Amino acid sequence: MSKTLIGSAIIGQSGGPSSVINASILGAIKTALEASEITRVYGAANGIVGVLNDQLFDLNLEDMDELELLRYTPASALGSCRHKLPEIGDDDWEYKKILETFKKYNVRYFFYNGGNDSMDTCNKISKYCLKNGYECRVMGIPKTIDNDLYGTDHCPGFASAAKYIATSIAEISLDTRVYDYGNISIVEIMGRNAGWLAASAALSNLNGVGCDLIYLPEVPFDLEKFIDDVNDVYEKKGKVVVAVSEGIKDENDKYISEYASSKKEKDKFGHMQMGGLAQFLALQIKARTGAKIRGIELSLLQRCAAHCASKTDYDEAFMAGKAAVENAINGSSDMMVSFKCQRGSKLSDYKCEIELLPLELVANYEKKVPLEWINNDKNNVTKEYIDYVLPLIQGETELPKVNGLPRFARLKKILVK
Amino acid sequence: MSKTLIGSAIIGQSGGPSSVINASILGAIKTALEASEITRVYGAANGIVGVLNDQLFDLNLEDMDELELLRYTPASALGSCRHKLPEIGDDDWEYKKILETFKKYNVRYFFYNGGNDSMDTCNKISKYCLKNGYECRVMGIPKTIDNDLYGTDHCPGFASAAKYIATSIAEISLDTRVYDYGNISIVEIMGRNAGWLAASAALSNLNGVGCDLIYLPEVPFDLEKFIDDVNDVYEKKGKVVVAVSEGIKDENDKYISEYASSKKEKDKFGHMQMGGLAQFLALQIKARTGAKIRGIELSLLQRCAAHCASKTDYDEAFMAGKAAVENAINGSSDMMVSFKCQRGSKLSDYKCEIELLPLELVANYEKKVPLEWINNDKNNVTKEYIDYVLPLIQGETELPKVNGLPRFARLKKILVK
Repeated sequence: MSKTLIGSAIIGQSGGPSSVINASILGAIKTALEASEITRVYGAANGIVGVLNDQLFDLNLEDMDELELLRYTPASALGSCRHKLPEIGDDDWEYKKILETFKKYNVRYFFYNGGNDSMDTCNKISKYCLKNGYECRVMGIPKTIDNDLYGTDHCPGFASAAKYIATSIAEISLDTRVYDYGNISIVEIMGRNAGWLAASAALSNLNGVGCDLIYLPEVPFDLEKFIDDVNDVYEKKGKVVVAVSEGIKDENDKYISEYASSKKEKDKFGHMQMGGLAQFLALQIKARTGAKIRGIELSLLQRCAAHCASKTDYDEAFMAGKAAVENAINGSSDMMVSFKCQRGSKLSDYKCEIELLPLELVANYEKKVPLEWINNDKNNVTKEYIDYVLPLIQGETELPKVNGLPRFARLKKILVK
Repeated sequence: MSKTLIGSAIIGQSGGPSSVINASILGAIKTALEASEITRVYGAANGIVGVLNDQLFDLNLEDMDELELLRYTPASALGSCRHKLPEIGDDDWEYKKILETFKKYNVRYFFYNGGNDSMDTCNKISKYCLKNGYECRVMGIPKTIDNDLYGTDHCPGFASAAKYIATSIAEISLDTRVYDYGNISIVEIMGRNAGWLAASAALSNLNGVGCDLIYLPEVPFDLEKFIDDVNDVYEKKGKVVVAVSEGIKDENDKYISEYASSKKEKDKFGHMQMGGLAQFLALQIKARTGAKIRGIELSLLQRCAAHCASKTDYDEAFMAGKAAVENAINGSSDMMVSFKCQRGSKLSDYKCEIELLPLELVANYEKKVPLEWINNDKNNVTKEYIDYVLPLIQGETELPKVNGLPRFARLKKILVK
């Protein structure tokens, strides 16, 4: 048993939002509010930026009923950021400000909810506190629709995005089949370097209508082969639905979307801003086949469509937040909560347990779709992928509605003076 | 009481699909299958094109359980078309072929499920049959997400699209508010000449998060004023969500989307193919404000997202199909089923009754959003619009799921030999 650590807690969110990211902070907030070791629970306004600028919400002042709605509310409720901390030692003024805030509020617990970059932030803060002899237990709570975090079976947020994508593609597929003429639809799906989400388009076929071809960033994209693939299906069936990851690259490692626009800018982490790929590919095929083609970008909805979230996903997201706080109270630090899962021949065989992974193992490493889960033609995924993802999308959201529309959480977000 | 007419029935679908269009044909098919006056029930493959080409599905051979799934299945299950019949008298070979098919199968009931153009088709067929002394009762079953059919309170399909749009915009709006920097999102919504659907973005505000500005085709679009409007909200709030109808036009009646692309083609009814408007407007604002901007096209999903349909909508869609058959059996012909509705101070005061309207009143006339339901600044709608649409989006879909994904109807669609 580790020594009891008494003090306040900061909970922050970072990176792109998801449909269940707030279920994770609800798990963390509730557990922290109930814990006798935690004296006060603060929310960082816009993640680490709020800690840097001493902008914290006093979560003890929120109504419990409203907090409970966080379970079903998409998009980071505390606000997010894409702020990258410098390497420790380069110029420590940011770390000094963070430590200043920690000391000012006697922060002894820091919970950070995000993806790769957020685990990097988490790891650096933990190392800086250790180096400076300030005792603070730091825990990462995973979140990314991209599902590319190392070491965990999957990431909260991924399954709801996958469920929305598979549902939407089944519906789009039905829609594109109604007319008596040929039709090709290209659906662009998020995922910068890993194809987990684009691959979920394959789920749409399970109930008999869906997606014909899928292109992932894990294998080089060949435009000529792509056009041939689409043409083959078009000639056989007259209707084609194609899913492409926004992150597909050619054999020279250049994003195909870069050909679509030369004016793309990089964000602060050096990631390319994506978009316009579906239209670009649609034009390429139209020029070669003359077929009626539509490019569809699922855009923000794939990461925020809480109305089509997976119950399994938000239950696990909640569990991850709760486990982060419980384990920190019990002495863990410098860890990311992760999932260890078992699957069997039936969906009901699925079991998900928490394990902790050292942050430095996780930070900045991107997990990709295994190449053996991609078919030989490099234009679809195998049954292994389906078996992996199917248990994760089970169960429906219980999103409360008022006036026939979602009633999302409205926090007071009272700043500490 | 009208004379009993014994014979077979054809049910067809035409125009763009919707989330509840198959609930209407389910209402018609079930009622027709049960009616002693109707000897056989055929589905036209791809609407009137199937009648022209003698391609009919024998719906008596379908399983009832599978037919029942039509209630929740989006996109025209019998196939659709955009075929325009010529004026009667110009060149009657198409009408002759239609009459040939009618006579071959002793078709005495013709039910056609569609929008303006479909009611035009319906009206012409009815007139041609009358002129040639062939007794056939012809009934239109309304369907259009655009909600622009004359004489009916609203059209099946509209409310589900509106519910999806309002839900999605609430979610997008939350998503765009998470970062610590300014953000403008432009959401492009379907509606060629009427702004009913774009206006539904206003519903997203009812539960506290949603849309700031709405632009409809009913009033001329002024790009300068638009940029000023967006800038005003941006300066006050830092985040802006804008809904624009794809059909907005400038004061010279030119579609703004035509400025976005010079390569647009017209479809067979002379309608301009839309798209790319959100991106175009986003670029205009970016050039003037430098703000971070995203153009989002809701694309096909707004008309096929059955997973977010309104129960009121599919119940009414079913009722419309049922009423078409019942009234035809009782002697009505040359009519479109329409809705007469009452609204009160409470949502539960809403009542919807069937009435019949002569097809020639309805065909080719487009009903627009009343100008008095648009605010003085021409950038939003008034409470009258909300009161009108709110009862229509009530109730949730009961879409059956298998594997956590929609299980849509799979008809056998056996062609009559």
